Amino acid sequence: MDFPDRIESGMQRALRFATANGCPPILAKALRHAVFPGGARIRPRLCLAVAAACGDGEPSVADAAATAIELLHCASLVHDDMPCFDNAMMRRGRASVHAEFGEQIALLAGDGLIVTAFETIARETLQRPDLTGPIIATIAKSVGAPYGLVAGQAWESEPEINIAIYHRAKTASLFSGAVSTGAIASGGNPLDWLGLADALGAAYQVADDLYDAVGQDDGVGKPAGQDGRNAKPNIVATLGLDAALQRLKNLVGEAVDCVPDCPGAEAFRTMIRQEATRLMPKTLATSAA
Amino acid sequence: MDFPDRIESGMQRALRFATANGCPPILAKALRHAVFPGGARIRPRLCLAVAAACGDGEPSVADAAATAIELLHCASLVHDDMPCFDNAMMRRGRASVHAEFGEQIALLAGDGLIVTAFETIARETLQRPDLTGPIIATIAKSVGAPYGLVAGQAWESEPEINIAIYHRAKTASLFSGAVSTGAIASGGNPLDWLGLADALGAAYQVADDLYDAVGQDDGVGKPAGQDGRNAKPNIVATLGLDAALQRLKNLVGEAVDCVPDCPGAEAFRTMIRQEATRLMPKTLATSAA
Repeated sequence: MDFPDRIESGMQRALRFATANGCPPILAKALRHAVFPGGARIRPRLCLAVAAACGDGEPSVADAAATAIELLHCASLVHDDMPCFDNAMMRRGRASVHAEFGEQIALLAGDGLIVTAFETIARETLQRPDLTGPIIATIAKSVGAPYGLVAGQAWESEPEINIAIYHRAKTASLFSGAVSTGAIASGGNPLDWLGLADALGAAYQVADDLYDAVGQDDGVGKPAGQDGRNAKPNIVATLGLDAALQRLKNLVGEAVDCVPDCPGAEAFRTMIRQEATRLMPKTLATSAA
Repeated sequence: MDFPDRIESGMQRALRFATANGCPPILAKALRHAVFPGGARIRPRLCLAVAAACGDGEPSVADAAATAIELLHCASLVHDDMPCFDNAMMRRGRASVHAEFGEQIALLAGDGLIVTAFETIARETLQRPDLTGPIIATIAKSVGAPYGLVAGQAWESEPEINIAIYHRAKTASLFSGAVSTGAIASGGNPLDWLGLADALGAAYQVADDLYDAVGQDDGVGKPAGQDGRNAKPNIVATLGLDAALQRLKNLVGEAVDCVPDCPGAEAFRTMIRQEATRLMPKTLATSAA
Protein backbone atom coordinates (compact mmCIF):
# COMPACT_ATOMS: atom_id res chain seq x y z
CA MET A 1 0.00 0.00 0.00
CA ASP A 2 1.17 3.56 -0.65
CA PHE A 3 1.21 6.17 2.11
CA PRO A 4 -2.31 7.59 1.57
CA ASP A 5 -3.83 4.09 1.62
CA ARG A 6 -1.91 3.12 4.74
CA ILE A 7 -3.01 6.33 6.46
CA GLU A 8 -6.70 6.02 5.57
CA SER A 9 -6.64 2.35 6.52
CA GLY A 10 -5.09 3.20 9.90
CA MET A 11 -7.60 5.98 10.52
CA GLN A 12 -10.52 3.73 9.56
CA ARG A 13 -9.31 1.01 11.89
CA ALA A 14 -8.86 3.43 14.82
CA LEU A 15 -12.34 4.87 14.26
CA ARG A 16 -13.89 1.40 13.99
CA PHE A 17 -12.68 0.72 17.53
CA ALA A 18 -13.74 4.14 18.86
CA THR A 19 -17.22 4.03 17.31
CA ALA A 20 -17.90 0.33 17.86
CA ASN A 21 -21.35 -0.98 18.64
CA GLY A 22 -22.51 0.67 21.89
CA CYS A 23 -21.00 4.08 21.20
CA PRO A 24 -23.49 6.95 21.62
CA PRO A 25 -24.65 7.47 18.00
CA ILE A 26 -24.19 11.25 17.85
CA LEU A 27 -20.68 11.02 19.28
CA ALA A 28 -19.83 8.29 16.77
CA LYS A 29 -21.00 10.53 13.91
CA ALA A 30 -19.04 13.48 15.26
CA LEU A 31 -15.85 11.43 15.62
CA ARG A 32 -16.14 10.34 11.98
CA HIS A 33 -17.01 13.87 10.86
CA ALA A 34 -13.83 15.16 12.52
CA VAL A 35 -11.63 12.64 10.73
CA PHE A 36 -13.26 11.83 7.34
CA PRO A 37 -12.80 13.04 4.73
CA GLY A 38 -9.37 14.14 5.81
CA GLY A 39 -7.30 17.14 4.84
CA ALA A 40 -3.87 16.77 3.27
CA ARG A 41 -2.74 14.28 5.98
CA ILE A 42 0.62 16.06 5.87
CA ARG A 43 1.89 14.93 9.28
CA PRO A 44 1.17 11.19 8.93
CA ARG A 45 2.65 11.21 5.41
CA LEU A 46 5.78 12.78 6.85
CA CYS A 47 5.90 10.14 9.58
CA LEU A 48 5.61 7.29 7.08
CA ALA A 49 8.13 8.94 4.73
CA VAL A 50 10.74 9.14 7.49
CA ALA A 51 10.02 5.52 8.48
CA ALA A 52 10.48 4.50 4.82
CA ALA A 53 13.70 6.49 4.52
CA CYS A 54 14.98 4.56 7.57
CA GLY A 55 14.09 1.19 5.97
CA ASP A 56 10.50 0.79 7.25
CA GLY A 57 11.51 -1.99 9.64
CA GLU A 58 8.19 -2.08 11.51
CA PRO A 59 5.49 -0.77 9.17
CA SER A 60 2.65 -1.53 11.60
CA VAL A 61 4.34 0.56 14.30
CA ALA A 62 4.89 3.41 11.84
CA ASP A 63 1.24 3.17 10.82
CA ALA A 64 0.16 3.38 14.47
CA ALA A 65 2.30 6.47 15.06
CA ALA A 66 1.06 8.13 11.86
CA THR A 67 -2.55 7.41 12.79
CA ALA A 68 -2.14 8.73 16.33
CA ILE A 69 -0.53 11.94 15.08
CA GLU A 70 -3.33 12.60 12.60
CA LEU A 71 -5.98 11.84 15.25
CA LEU A 72 -4.36 14.40 17.54
CA HIS A 73 -4.20 16.93 14.72
CA CYS A 74 -7.93 16.38 14.03
CA ALA A 75 -8.68 16.75 17.77
CA SER A 76 -6.84 20.07 17.84
CA LEU A 77 -8.87 21.34 14.87
CA VAL A 78 -12.16 20.38 16.54
CA HIS A 79 -11.28 22.22 19.75
CA ASP A 80 -9.64 25.15 17.92
CA ASP A 81 -12.81 25.72 15.86
CA MET A 82 -15.00 26.02 18.98
CA PRO A 83 -16.66 29.32 19.87
CA CYS A 84 -14.23 30.08 22.70
CA PHE A 85 -11.33 29.92 20.19
CA ASP A 86 -11.75 30.68 16.50
CA ASN A 87 -15.53 30.23 16.39
CA ALA A 88 -15.08 28.75 12.90
CA MET A 89 -18.28 27.40 11.39
CA MET A 90 -16.53 25.78 8.42
CA ARG A 91 -13.67 23.29 8.19
CA ARG A 92 -12.45 21.49 5.06
CA GLY A 93 -15.34 22.93 3.05
CA ARG A 94 -18.19 21.85 5.31
CA ALA A 95 -19.60 22.47 8.78
CA SER A 96 -17.12 22.28 11.63
CA VAL A 97 -17.89 19.71 14.35
CA HIS A 98 -19.41 22.18 16.81
CA ALA A 99 -21.45 23.81 14.03
CA GLU A 100 -22.88 20.42 13.07
CA PHE A 101 -23.21 18.67 16.45
CA GLY A 102 -23.07 21.41 19.09
CA GLU A 103 -20.41 22.46 21.56
CA GLN A 104 -20.84 19.60 24.02
CA ILE A 105 -20.27 16.94 21.41
CA ALA A 106 -17.39 18.90 19.87
CA LEU A 107 -15.63 19.12 23.21
CA LEU A 108 -16.16 15.40 23.82
CA ALA A 109 -15.17 14.40 20.28
CA GLY A 110 -11.87 16.25 20.67
CA ASP A 111 -11.26 14.56 24.03
CA GLY A 112 -12.22 11.20 22.55
CA LEU A 113 -9.82 11.59 19.64
CA ILE A 114 -6.95 12.39 22.01
CA VAL A 115 -7.67 9.24 23.99
CA THR A 116 -8.09 7.18 20.80
CA ALA A 117 -4.68 8.34 19.61
CA PHE A 118 -2.87 6.89 22.62
CA GLU A 119 -5.09 3.81 22.69
CA THR A 120 -4.20 3.13 19.05
CA ILE A 121 -0.49 3.10 19.80
CA ALA A 122 -0.94 0.82 22.81
CA ARG A 123 -3.07 -1.61 20.79
CA GLU A 124 -1.04 -1.61 17.56
CA THR A 125 2.44 -1.97 19.09
CA LEU A 126 1.79 -5.10 21.17
CA GLN A 127 4.33 -7.01 19.06
CA ARG A 128 7.01 -4.41 19.83
CA PRO A 129 6.42 -3.41 23.48
CA ASP A 130 9.89 -1.85 23.58
CA LEU A 131 8.59 0.84 21.20
CA THR A 132 5.25 1.57 22.92
CA GLY A 133 6.64 3.84 25.64
CA PRO A 134 9.10 5.80 23.46
CA ILE A 135 6.48 6.48 20.79
CA ILE A 136 3.81 7.54 23.28
CA ALA A 137 6.26 9.74 25.18
CA THR A 138 7.43 11.40 21.96
CA ILE A 139 3.93 12.09 20.69
CA ALA A 140 2.72 13.28 24.10
CA LYS A 141 5.62 15.73 24.27
CA SER A 142 4.71 17.13 20.88
CA VAL A 143 1.05 17.79 21.76
CA GLY A 144 1.10 18.50 25.51
CA ALA A 145 2.60 20.95 27.96
CA PRO A 146 5.09 22.56 28.38
CA TYR A 147 6.29 22.61 24.73
CA GLY A 148 3.66 20.99 22.50
CA LEU A 149 0.51 21.97 20.67
CA VAL A 150 -1.55 22.66 23.80
CA ALA A 151 1.16 24.98 25.09
CA GLY A 152 1.28 26.69 21.70
CA GLN A 153 -2.43 27.46 21.82
CA ALA A 154 -2.07 28.61 25.41
CA TRP A 155 0.54 31.21 24.42
CA GLU A 156 -2.33 33.04 22.68
CA SER A 157 -3.74 33.82 26.14
CA GLU A 158 -0.51 35.36 27.43
CA PRO A 159 -0.05 39.15 27.56
CA GLU A 160 3.39 38.77 25.95
CA ILE A 161 4.22 36.28 23.26
CA ASN A 162 7.47 35.28 21.56
CA ILE A 163 6.34 34.42 18.05
CA ALA A 164 9.16 31.89 17.48
CA ILE A 165 8.38 29.96 20.67
CA TYR A 166 4.67 30.20 19.91
CA HIS A 167 5.00 28.77 16.39
CA ARG A 168 7.44 26.10 17.48
CA ALA A 169 4.97 24.83 20.07
CA LYS A 170 1.78 25.31 18.08
CA THR A 171 2.93 23.95 14.73
CA ALA A 172 6.50 22.67 14.56
CA SER A 173 6.19 20.38 17.59
CA LEU A 174 3.71 18.01 15.93
CA PHE A 175 5.86 17.91 12.77
CA SER A 176 8.73 17.06 15.03
CA GLY A 177 6.69 14.30 16.64
CA ALA A 178 5.81 12.90 13.21
CA VAL A 179 9.45 12.85 12.14
CA SER A 180 10.77 11.43 15.42
CA THR A 181 8.24 8.63 15.67
CA GLY A 182 8.80 7.70 12.02
CA ALA A 183 12.48 7.27 12.86
CA ILE A 184 11.82 5.40 16.12
CA ALA A 185 9.44 2.99 14.39
CA SER A 186 12.18 1.96 11.93
CA GLY A 187 15.17 1.85 14.21
CA GLY A 188 16.47 5.26 13.13
CA ASN A 189 17.85 7.79 15.58
CA PRO A 190 15.31 10.58 16.09
CA LEU A 191 18.09 13.00 17.02
CA ASP A 192 19.48 12.76 13.46
CA TRP A 193 16.15 14.06 12.18
CA LEU A 194 15.60 17.01 14.52
CA GLY A 195 16.99 19.64 12.14
CA LEU A 196 14.73 18.45 9.37
CA ALA A 197 11.69 18.45 11.67
CA ASP A 198 12.36 22.00 12.83
CA ALA A 199 12.81 23.34 9.29
CA LEU A 200 9.70 21.60 7.96
CA GLY A 201 7.56 22.67 10.89
CA ALA A 202 8.63 26.28 10.47
CA ALA A 203 8.05 26.06 6.69
CA TYR A 204 4.55 24.77 7.24
CA GLN A 205 3.76 27.62 9.62
CA VAL A 206 4.88 30.17 7.00
CA ALA A 207 2.79 28.39 4.36
CA ASP A 208 -0.22 28.46 6.67
CA ASP A 209 0.21 32.18 7.29
CA LEU A 210 0.58 32.78 3.53
CA TYR A 211 -2.74 31.03 2.91
CA ASP A 212 -4.37 33.21 5.51
CA ALA A 213 -2.87 36.36 4.02
CA VAL A 214 -3.40 35.84 0.28
CA GLY A 215 -7.01 34.86 0.70
CA GLN A 216 -7.11 31.34 -0.69
CA ASP A 217 -9.10 28.75 1.14
CA ASP A 218 -8.41 25.59 -0.79
CA GLY A 219 -6.37 23.15 1.17
CA VAL A 220 -4.91 24.08 4.51
CA GLY A 221 -8.36 24.38 5.96
CA LYS A 222 -8.74 27.67 7.75
CA PRO A 223 -10.71 30.46 6.09
CA ALA A 224 -8.58 33.34 4.78
CA GLY A 225 -8.12 36.37 7.00
CA GLN A 226 -8.98 34.45 10.18
CA ASP A 227 -5.71 35.29 11.96
CA GLY A 228 -6.33 39.00 11.61
CA ARG A 229 -9.93 38.68 12.81
CA ASN A 230 -8.78 36.65 15.81
CA ALA A 231 -5.77 38.92 16.46
CA LYS A 232 -3.35 36.00 16.10
CA PRO A 233 0.28 36.49 15.15
CA ASN A 234 0.86 36.02 11.40
CA ILE A 235 4.31 36.05 9.78
CA VAL A 236 3.07 37.80 6.63
CA ALA A 237 1.66 40.62 8.74
CA THR A 238 4.99 40.87 10.55
CA LEU A 239 7.49 40.51 7.68
CA GLY A 240 5.50 41.35 4.56
CA LEU A 241 4.62 39.01 1.68
CA ASP A 242 7.98 38.97 -0.15
CA ALA A 243 10.08 38.34 2.94
CA ALA A 244 7.67 35.61 4.08
CA LEU A 245 7.95 33.89 0.70
CA GLN A 246 11.74 34.11 0.83
CA ARG A 247 11.66 32.67 4.32
CA LEU A 248 9.62 29.72 3.10
CA LYS A 249 12.13 29.06 0.28
CA ASN A 250 15.02 29.17 2.74
CA LEU A 251 13.31 26.80 5.15
CA VAL A 252 12.58 24.26 2.41
CA GLY A 253 16.23 24.42 1.33
CA GLU A 254 17.29 23.97 4.92
CA ALA A 255 15.02 20.94 5.29
CA VAL A 256 16.53 19.35 2.18
CA ASP A 257 20.03 19.95 3.53
CA CYS A 258 19.10 18.40 6.88
CA VAL A 259 18.07 14.96 5.58
CA PRO A 260 20.52 12.60 7.30
CA ASP A 261 22.32 9.73 5.60
CA CYS A 262 19.87 6.86 5.37
CA PRO A 263 18.77 4.22 2.83
CA GLY A 264 16.07 6.46 1.31
CA ALA A 265 17.68 9.92 1.61
CA GLU A 266 17.47 10.93 -2.05
CA ALA A 267 13.82 9.91 -2.47
CA PHE A 268 13.05 11.80 0.71
CA ARG A 269 14.68 15.01 -0.58
CA THR A 270 12.62 14.81 -3.77
CA MET A 271 9.48 14.37 -1.72
CA ILE A 272 10.20 17.48 0.37
CA ARG A 273 10.57 19.63 -2.75
CA GLN A 274 7.26 18.32 -4.10
CA GLU A 275 5.52 18.85 -0.77
CA ALA A 276 6.80 22.42 -0.60
CA THR A 277 5.06 23.30 -3.85
CA ARG A 278 1.94 21.45 -2.82
CA LEU A 279 1.81 23.25 0.53
CA MET A 280 1.87 26.70 -0.96
CA PRO A 281 -1.11 28.76 -2.13
CA LYS A 282 -1.28 28.14 -5.89
CA THR A 283 -0.87 31.81 -6.78
CA LEU A 284 2.51 31.81 -5.01
CA ALA A 285 3.79 28.32 -5.80
CA THR A 286 5.55 29.19 -9.07
CA SER A 287 7.56 32.06 -7.67
CA ALA A 288 8.70 30.22 -4.55
CA ALA A 289 9.38 26.69 -5.76
CA MET B 1 4.72 6.10 52.10
CA ASP B 2 1.00 5.61 52.62
CA PHE B 3 -1.47 5.91 49.75
CA PRO B 4 -2.25 9.65 50.07
CA ASP B 5 1.46 10.52 50.12
CA ARG B 6 2.18 8.30 47.13
CA ILE B 7 -0.69 9.87 45.23
CA GLU B 8 0.25 13.50 45.97
CA SER B 9 3.87 12.73 45.20
CA GLY B 10 2.90 11.19 41.85
CA MET B 11 0.64 14.13 41.00
CA GLN B 12 3.34 16.64 41.95
CA ARG B 13 5.89 14.83 39.80
CA ALA B 14 3.54 14.69 36.78
CA LEU B 15 2.75 18.40 37.13
CA ARG B 16 6.42 19.31 37.49
CA PHE B 17 7.03 17.83 34.06
CA ALA B 18 3.91 19.42 32.51
CA THR B 19 4.58 22.89 33.92
CA ALA B 20 8.36 22.87 33.52
CA ASN B 21 10.30 26.00 32.66
CA GLY B 22 9.04 27.28 29.31
CA CYS B 23 5.38 26.44 29.89
CA PRO B 24 3.02 29.37 29.23
CA PRO B 25 2.57 30.77 32.77
CA ILE B 26 -1.23 31.00 32.74
CA LEU B 27 -1.58 27.44 31.47
CA ALA B 28 0.84 26.25 34.15
CA LYS B 29 -1.25 27.93 36.84
CA ALA B 30 -4.45 26.47 35.43
CA LEU B 31 -3.01 22.95 35.31
CA ARG B 32 -2.03 23.22 38.97
CA HIS B 33 -5.39 24.76 39.88
CA ALA B 34 -7.16 21.79 38.28
CA VAL B 35 -5.15 19.26 40.28
CA PHE B 36 -4.22 20.88 43.64
CA PRO B 37 -5.60 20.79 46.22
CA GLY B 38 -7.26 17.55 45.20
CA GLY B 39 -10.60 16.09 46.15
CA ALA B 40 -10.91 12.75 47.86
CA ARG B 41 -8.56 11.05 45.33
CA ILE B 42 -10.92 8.08 45.49
CA ARG B 43 -9.91 6.46 42.19
CA PRO B 44 -6.13 6.50 42.70
CA ARG B 45 -6.55 5.23 46.28
CA LEU B 46 -8.61 2.38 44.90
CA CYS B 47 -5.93 1.64 42.30
CA LEU B 48 -3.17 1.53 44.93
CA ALA B 49 -5.34 -0.53 47.29
CA VAL B 50 -5.90 -3.19 44.64
CA ALA B 51 -2.19 -3.18 43.81
CA ALA B 52 -1.42 -3.62 47.52
CA ALA B 53 -3.96 -6.43 47.85
CA CYS B 54 -2.16 -8.18 44.97
CA GLY B 55 1.22 -7.83 46.69
CA ASP B 56 2.34 -4.44 45.26
CA GLY B 57 4.98 -6.05 43.07
CA GLU B 58 5.74 -2.89 41.07
CA PRO B 59 4.84 0.11 43.22
CA SER B 60 6.20 2.64 40.71
CA VAL B 61 3.95 1.22 37.99
CA ALA B 62 0.96 1.31 40.34
CA ASP B 63 1.82 4.92 41.21
CA ALA B 64 1.95 5.83 37.50
CA ALA B 65 -1.45 4.24 36.86
CA ALA B 66 -2.97 5.92 39.92
CA THR B 67 -1.58 9.30 38.87
CA ALA B 68 -2.82 8.96 35.30
CA ILE B 69 -6.30 8.00 36.45
CA GLU B 70 -6.54 11.00 38.78
CA LEU B 71 -5.20 13.35 36.06
CA LEU B 72 -7.91 12.09 33.71
CA HIS B 73 -10.55 12.53 36.42
CA CYS B 74 -9.36 16.13 36.97
CA ALA B 75 -9.44 16.75 33.19
CA SER B 76 -13.03 15.54 33.03
CA LEU B 77 -14.02 17.90 35.86
CA VAL B 78 -12.42 20.88 34.10
CA HIS B 79 -14.27 20.19 30.85
CA ASP B 80 -17.51 19.20 32.59
CA ASP B 81 -17.57 22.52 34.49
CA MET B 82 -17.34 24.56 31.28
CA PRO B 83 -20.26 26.74 30.16
CA CYS B 84 -21.34 24.36 27.39
CA PHE B 85 -21.80 21.60 30.01
CA ASP B 86 -22.62 22.32 33.66
CA ASN B 87 -21.52 25.96 33.64
CA ALA B 88 -20.28 25.41 37.20
CA MET B 89 -18.41 28.39 38.64
CA MET B 90 -17.26 26.52 41.76
CA ARG B 91 -15.35 23.28 42.22
CA ARG B 92 -13.95 21.91 45.48
CA GLY B 93 -14.90 25.11 47.30
CA ARG B 94 -13.22 27.61 44.99
CA ALA B 95 -13.46 28.94 41.44
CA SER B 96 -13.59 26.33 38.69
CA VAL B 97 -10.82 26.50 36.08
CA HIS B 98 -12.87 28.32 33.44
CA ALA B 99 -14.21 30.75 36.06
CA GLU B 100 -10.67 31.58 37.13
CA PHE B 101 -8.76 31.43 33.83
CA GLY B 102 -11.35 31.67 31.05
CA GLU B 103 -12.76 29.12 28.66
CA GLN B 104 -9.78 28.92 26.32
CA ILE B 105 -7.37 27.99 29.08
CA ALA B 106 -9.89 25.59 30.64
CA LEU B 107 -10.29 23.75 27.35
CA LEU B 108 -6.51 23.57 26.92
CA ALA B 109 -5.86 22.59 30.54
CA GLY B 110 -8.25 19.66 30.18
CA ASP B 111 -6.58 18.59 26.95
CA GLY B 112 -3.15 19.01 28.54
CA LEU B 113 -4.10 16.86 31.53
CA ILE B 114 -5.31 14.06 29.24
CA VAL B 115 -1.99 14.11 27.40
CA THR B 116 -0.03 14.32 30.66
CA ALA B 117 -1.83 11.22 31.93
CA PHE B 118 -0.61 9.04 29.07
CA GLU B 119 2.82 10.67 29.06
CA THR B 120 3.17 9.85 32.76
CA ILE B 121 2.55 6.15 32.17
CA ALA B 122 5.01 6.05 29.25
CA ARG B 123 7.69 7.80 31.32
CA GLU B 124 7.21 5.96 34.61
CA THR B 125 6.98 2.40 33.24
CA LEU B 126 10.25 2.36 31.29
CA GLN B 127 11.57 -0.38 33.60
CA ARG B 128 8.55 -2.57 32.83
CA PRO B 129 7.84 -1.98 29.11
CA ASP B 130 5.69 -5.11 29.06
CA LEU B 131 3.18 -3.23 31.27
CA THR B 132 3.14 0.10 29.37
CA GLY B 133 0.77 -1.00 26.61
CA PRO B 134 -1.67 -2.97 28.79
CA ILE B 135 -1.98 -0.13 31.30
CA ILE B 136 -2.44 2.55 28.65
CA ALA B 137 -4.97 0.44 26.76
CA THR B 138 -6.93 -0.26 29.94
CA ILE B 139 -7.03 3.38 31.02
CA ALA B 140 -7.85 4.62 27.50
CA LYS B 141 -10.75 2.19 27.34
CA SER B 142 -12.10 3.51 30.62
CA VAL B 143 -12.07 7.18 29.56
CA GLY B 144 -12.62 7.09 25.79
CA ALA B 145 -15.20 5.93 23.27
CA PRO B 146 -17.21 3.73 22.89
CA TYR B 147 -17.62 2.74 26.59
CA GLY B 148 -15.63 5.16 28.77
CA LEU B 149 -16.12 8.52 30.42
CA VAL B 150 -16.29 10.51 27.18
CA ALA B 151 -19.00 8.20 25.89
CA GLY B 152 -20.84 8.55 29.20
CA GLN B 153 -20.92 12.33 28.90
CA ALA B 154 -21.98 12.01 25.26
CA TRP B 155 -25.04 9.96 26.24
CA GLU B 156 -26.38 13.19 27.78
CA SER B 157 -26.77 14.54 24.21
CA GLU B 158 -28.81 11.59 22.98
CA PRO B 159 -32.60 11.81 22.69
CA GLU B 160 -32.91 8.42 24.44
CA ILE B 161 -30.71 7.29 27.28
CA ASN B 162 -30.42 4.01 29.17
CA ILE B 163 -29.51 5.12 32.69
CA ALA B 164 -27.56 1.92 33.48
CA ILE B 165 -25.40 2.21 30.34
CA TYR B 166 -24.98 5.93 30.96
CA HIS B 167 -23.77 5.51 34.55
CA ARG B 168 -21.56 2.58 33.67
CA ALA B 169 -19.75 4.67 31.05
CA LYS B 170 -19.72 7.97 32.90
CA THR B 171 -18.74 6.76 36.37
CA ALA B 172 -18.14 3.04 36.74
CA SER B 173 -15.71 2.78 33.82
CA LEU B 174 -13.00 4.88 35.48
CA PHE B 175 -13.42 2.92 38.72
CA SER B 176 -13.02 -0.18 36.65
CA GLY B 177 -9.85 1.27 35.08
CA ALA B 178 -8.48 2.05 38.54
CA VAL B 179 -9.12 -1.48 39.76
CA SER B 180 -7.85 -3.21 36.61
CA THR B 181 -4.61 -1.22 36.38
CA GLY B 182 -3.95 -1.75 40.10
CA ALA B 183 -4.17 -5.50 39.45
CA ILE B 184 -2.08 -5.35 36.25
CA ALA B 185 0.65 -3.35 38.00
CA SER B 186 1.06 -6.11 40.61
CA GLY B 187 0.72 -9.18 38.47
CA GLY B 188 -2.91 -9.80 39.44
CA ASN B 189 -5.54 -10.82 36.91
CA PRO B 190 -7.82 -7.84 36.20
CA LEU B 191 -10.65 -10.20 35.26
CA ASP B 192 -10.80 -11.43 38.87
CA TRP B 193 -11.53 -7.86 39.95
CA LEU B 194 -14.22 -6.92 37.45
CA GLY B 195 -17.17 -7.69 39.74
CA LEU B 196 -15.70 -5.53 42.48
CA ALA B 197 -15.07 -2.67 40.06
CA ASP B 198 -18.62 -2.75 38.75
CA ALA B 199 -20.15 -2.78 42.22
CA LEU B 200 -17.94 0.03 43.52
CA GLY B 201 -18.48 2.19 40.44
CA ALA B 202 -22.23 1.81 40.74
CA ALA B 203 -22.07 2.51 44.49
CA TYR B 204 -20.15 5.71 43.88
CA GLN B 205 -22.71 6.87 41.32
CA VAL B 206 -25.52 6.35 43.85
CA ALA B 207 -23.51 8.21 46.51
CA ASP B 208 -22.94 11.08 44.06
CA ASP B 209 -26.65 11.27 43.28
CA LEU B 210 -27.46 11.21 47.01
CA TYR B 211 -25.16 14.18 47.59
CA ASP B 212 -26.91 16.04 44.82
CA ALA B 213 -30.33 15.21 46.22
CA VAL B 214 -29.86 15.82 49.97
CA GLY B 215 -28.23 19.18 49.44
CA GLN B 216 -24.82 18.71 50.98
CA ASP B 217 -21.83 20.09 49.16
CA ASP B 218 -18.92 18.96 51.25
CA GLY B 219 -16.85 16.39 49.51
CA VAL B 220 -17.86 14.96 46.20
CA GLY B 221 -17.51 18.31 44.56
CA LYS B 222 -20.61 19.20 42.61
CA PRO B 223 -23.04 21.73 44.08
CA ALA B 224 -26.29 20.22 45.34
CA GLY B 225 -29.28 20.19 43.01
CA GLN B 226 -27.12 20.55 39.89
CA ASP B 227 -28.46 17.40 38.21
CA GLY B 228 -32.02 18.69 38.35
CA ARG B 229 -31.01 22.11 37.03
CA ASN B 230 -29.10 20.47 34.18
CA ALA B 231 -31.83 17.90 33.54
CA LYS B 232 -29.43 15.02 34.15
CA PRO B 233 -30.59 11.57 35.22
CA ASN B 234 -30.38 11.11 39.02
CA ILE B 235 -31.07 7.81 40.77
CA VAL B 236 -32.72 9.48 43.78
CA ALA B 237 -35.15 11.28 41.48
CA THR B 238 -35.92 7.96 39.80
CA LEU B 239 -36.13 5.58 42.79
CA GLY B 240 -36.73 7.84 45.77
CA LEU B 241 -34.37 8.41 48.72
CA ASP B 242 -35.02 5.20 50.69
CA ALA B 243 -34.65 2.88 47.71
CA ALA B 244 -31.49 4.70 46.62
CA LEU B 245 -29.98 4.28 50.08
CA GLN B 246 -30.88 0.59 50.09
CA ARG B 247 -29.31 0.25 46.67
CA LEU B 248 -26.10 1.79 47.97
CA LYS B 249 -26.03 -0.67 50.92
CA ASN B 250 -26.57 -3.60 48.57
CA LEU B 251 -23.80 -2.45 46.22
CA VAL B 252 -21.30 -2.04 49.04
CA GLY B 253 -22.15 -5.54 50.27
CA GLU B 254 -21.75 -6.85 46.74
CA ALA B 255 -18.36 -5.17 46.42
CA VAL B 256 -17.19 -6.79 49.67
CA ASP B 257 -18.37 -10.19 48.46
CA CYS B 258 -16.54 -9.73 45.14
CA VAL B 259 -13.04 -9.25 46.55
CA PRO B 260 -11.09 -12.18 45.07
CA ASP B 261 -8.67 -14.39 46.96
CA CYS B 262 -5.39 -12.49 47.25
CA PRO B 263 -2.71 -11.74 49.88
CA GLY B 264 -4.50 -8.62 51.17
CA ALA B 265 -8.16 -9.59 50.76
CA GLU B 266 -9.28 -9.03 54.35
CA ALA B 267 -7.64 -5.60 54.67
CA PHE B 268 -9.19 -4.66 51.37
CA ARG B 269 -12.70 -5.62 52.56
CA THR B 270 -12.26 -3.49 55.67
CA MET B 271 -11.20 -0.57 53.51
CA ILE B 272 -14.29 -0.82 51.32
CA ARG B 273 -16.58 -0.66 54.34
CA GLN B 274 -14.75 2.43 55.62
CA GLU B 275 -14.82 4.08 52.20
CA ALA B 276 -18.54 3.44 51.90
CA THR B 277 -19.24 5.47 55.02
CA ARG B 278 -16.82 8.16 53.97
CA LEU B 279 -18.43 8.45 50.53
CA MET B 280 -21.87 9.07 51.86
CA PRO B 281 -23.44 12.42 52.80
CA LYS B 282 -22.96 12.65 56.57
CA THR B 283 -26.67 12.94 57.27
CA LEU B 284 -27.19 9.53 55.67
CA ALA B 285 -24.02 7.69 56.68
CA THR B 286 -25.33 6.25 59.95
CA SER B 287 -28.46 4.72 58.53
CA ALA B 288 -26.72 3.14 55.54
CA ALA B 289 -23.41 1.95 56.96
